[in-house]
Amino acid sequence: MLVNVEKETKLFGQSIRQNIRVTFNYEVHFTHNIFNLKNPTLAQAIASDGEKKTKKIIALIDAGLLEFCPYLLAQLTNYTKFYAEVITLAAEPMLIPGGEAAKNEPKLLEQIHQLIEAAGICRHSYLLAIGGGAVLDLVGYAAATAHRGVRLIRIPTTVLAQNDSGIGVKNGINAFGKKNFLGTFAPPYAVINDSAFLTTLCDRDWRSGIAEAVKVALIKDANFFDFIHAHTTALAHRDMDSMQQLIYFCAQLHLEHIAKAGDPFEIGSSRPLDFGHWAAHKLEQLTDYRLRHGEAVAIGIALDSTYSYLLGMLSHSEWQKILKTLAGLGFTLYVPELAEQSSPKNTRCLFRGLTEFREHLGGELTLTLLQRIGKGVEVHEVDLSLYKQAISLLREFEKQQQMLLKRN
Amino acid sequence: MLVNVEKETKLFGQSIRQNIRVTFNYEVHFTHNIFNLKNPTLAQAIASDGEKKTKKIIALIDAGLLEFCPYLLAQLTNYTKFYAEVITLAAEPMLIPGGEAAKNEPKLLEQIHQLIEAAGICRHSYLLAIGGGAVLDLVGYAAATAHRGVRLIRIPTTVLAQNDSGIGVKNGINAFGKKNFLGTFAPPYAVINDSAFLTTLCDRDWRSGIAEAVKVALIKDANFFDFIHAHTTALAHRDMDSMQQLIYFCAQLHLEHIAKAGDPFEIGSSRPLDFGHWAAHKLEQLTDYRLRHGEAVAIGIALDSTYSYLLGMLSHSEWQKILKTLAGLGFTLYVPELAEQSSPKNTRCLFRGLTEFREHLGGELTLTLLQRIGKGVEVHEVDLSLYKQAISLLREFEKQQQMLLKRN
Repeated sequence: MLVNVEKETKLFGQSIRQNIRVTFNYEVHFTHNIFNLKNPTLAQAIASDGEKKTKKIIALIDAGLLEFCPYLLAQLTNYTKFYAEVITLAAEPMLIPGGEAAKNEPKLLEQIHQLIEAAGICRHSYLLAIGGGAVLDLVGYAAATAHRGVRLIRIPTTVLAQNDSGIGVKNGINAFGKKNFLGTFAPPYAVINDSAFLTTLCDRDWRSGIAEAVKVALIKDANFFDFIHAHTTALAHRDMDSMQQLIYFCAQLHLEHIAKAGDPFEIGSSRPLDFGHWAAHKLEQLTDYRLRHGEAVAIGIALDSTYSYLLGMLSHSEWQKILKTLAGLGFTLYVPELAEQSSPKNTRCLFRGLTEFREHLGGELTLTLLQRIGKGVEVHEVDLSLYKQAISLLREFEKQQQMLLKRN
Repeated sequence: MLVNVEKETKLFGQSIRQNIRVTFNYEVHFTHNIFNLKNPTLAQAIASDGEKKTKKIIALIDAGLLEFCPYLLAQLTNYTKFYAEVITLAAEPMLIPGGEAAKNEPKLLEQIHQLIEAAGICRHSYLLAIGGGAVLDLVGYAAATAHRGVRLIRIPTTVLAQNDSGIGVKNGINAFGKKNFLGTFAPPYAVINDSAFLTTLCDRDWRSGIAEAVKVALIKDANFFDFIHAHTTALAHRDMDSMQQLIYFCAQLHLEHIAKAGDPFEIGSSRPLDFGHWAAHKLEQLTDYRLRHGEAVAIGIALDSTYSYLLGMLSHSEWQKILKTLAGLGFTLYVPELAEQSSPKNTRCLFRGLTEFREHLGGELTLTLLQRIGKGVEVHEVDLSLYKQAISLLREFEKQQQMLLKRN
């Protein structure tokens, strides 16, 4: 290659084109009682790295869990002692306040970095993050940035984290009042979904996670939507078998999308999985997080489905089937904040969410709507007057629902 | 895919294997006087994103440059006005203290994030980072973590940054007294190497950057090493043509390695490009950064080459050719800190650098040595008594060099 070195004297205007391909692999395991000594899932996941020595791990745990799992820390300690050939706890577990608070406190990020440093965690050691989506997002960001990436095993404990946020490639924390302003794309080393944790959830959290499954079904798989529709009552009544299946199939669709849609690190502007999310993000903010993410997503889905109906893409019966499924699951589909429609320039206006959504993704505005149930379609323009009509329809629908509820 | 939903009731023990491939492309351009209005390189690089609207840019500039390029800010402003159809400055340029200081001050990271937020920079906007390796590392880290990655155009102004750090996929800052403790792998959108900036360098910085070229030549390409050997005097006397060629070929080898060696994000333990670096990193720290990175690397190369010779891999003449080339370029190959050999457990001991090197990479200790000039080889064990002998040989060599210098 360098034989002709001497001939090349004029290099200005030259360019070298670089092309890099990076492959990431990880497994999403489904299990029950992860720290039961007879359950080798976690130990096997770590042993499968093929490196022979005992691996250092540190655990970062959603503090809220301990209320429902008082023996969690003891179980973890026993588990690491039992599998001492494979893993060793390099430090006391760190407890992290659960919920969005975890992502709003920059000191927590620093404390996790400190712990990684103090415990001598290297790129071949493991962080176990046990908790809901917010804790996983925070710990994931810390893991991705220490030593340019230490290994992360996510153990999601909520429906939402098990079927959506916890199995993907993103992490992040909030900054400057903006959701996920800081973060990276960083696939985990592995994910372990333990259904036992789902029994700890309150009804709102149980229900919230279903919203992302409805979303992915609507844009990707009509059969899956039919499954949810058929199991509406079972899911609303916390039938664990139905929930297990929902999570498994949702995770499968989600993982398939990340792997095959061609842009896992979102270098372009297209984000079909953000169906219903422009309004959801804005509603979370407008309600000061009174709405949980999934509750806001359910409204966002209802809104964008109604808008798709008004655009003539969805039939009346498809549209009604979507709203009734969401309502049957127990979601409220109208909140007063939807009426904040002063002007998209006003940060309190719902439609400001469209601008913020575009700014976060960058480039052209790209929204996903529904061509039919099971098939999303991208649009780049919106008709605000039609959106206002959609909001009125939602208000009417919700009024009827409330009347039906009172009657029964 | 979901036809048999009902049949799958027992999901425990199931796993879904995820496989993600991500492709990154970027160009490394070679130019002269980047902000000359007649030079379209930068504007073209941005226009080539294929998105039609005018793009927001913000510039982050190594403050040290302004001493040598007092018109830089005015030139940048004029340039953006001239190419206003393509780019617009979204904020006043931010000045960043140059050198390692940039990576030791966490406030700077926060300030860059603030600027990105305030200027409304999105994933389709651009950060221009203009400066030496440290400033590029800091700005690169900020760019990679805001909105999970905004586009970064690196404009490296030192030899080291143009042929090595500025063209690769890493960024980072120091924390807890450890170099690059925080950082990510994040390919840039583009790199533009402007040779005009090289005239601003002091002799030490001019020389320092050559060390990484010697390194990559020694482990990868004997012809390239012969080129450097043949141009030792010209390079030492700041011949720009020789330097241009050195940078171009070094960059080419470096980029080829990143793309083809199979592990661009360093998921494994092997890092052949870190030849000579375990000692270099430790010497920078032991000398409180009195040594520049390239100066430390030159010593690290000399040390690991000597060790390779003592192991019987390099011939006596190859070994001498390496040391004489480094000395001819003006590098000092012995510093008193090499004699700090108390115990690898002592943080002041040179050999502690081996442990720290292993910890940063994680996994098994993996050092690159020389099988011959142009061919690196990995080893996983070291013989400290042989290393001590190598250090004695270096002290002798340096003594002789000093005597020769005095005589001439």
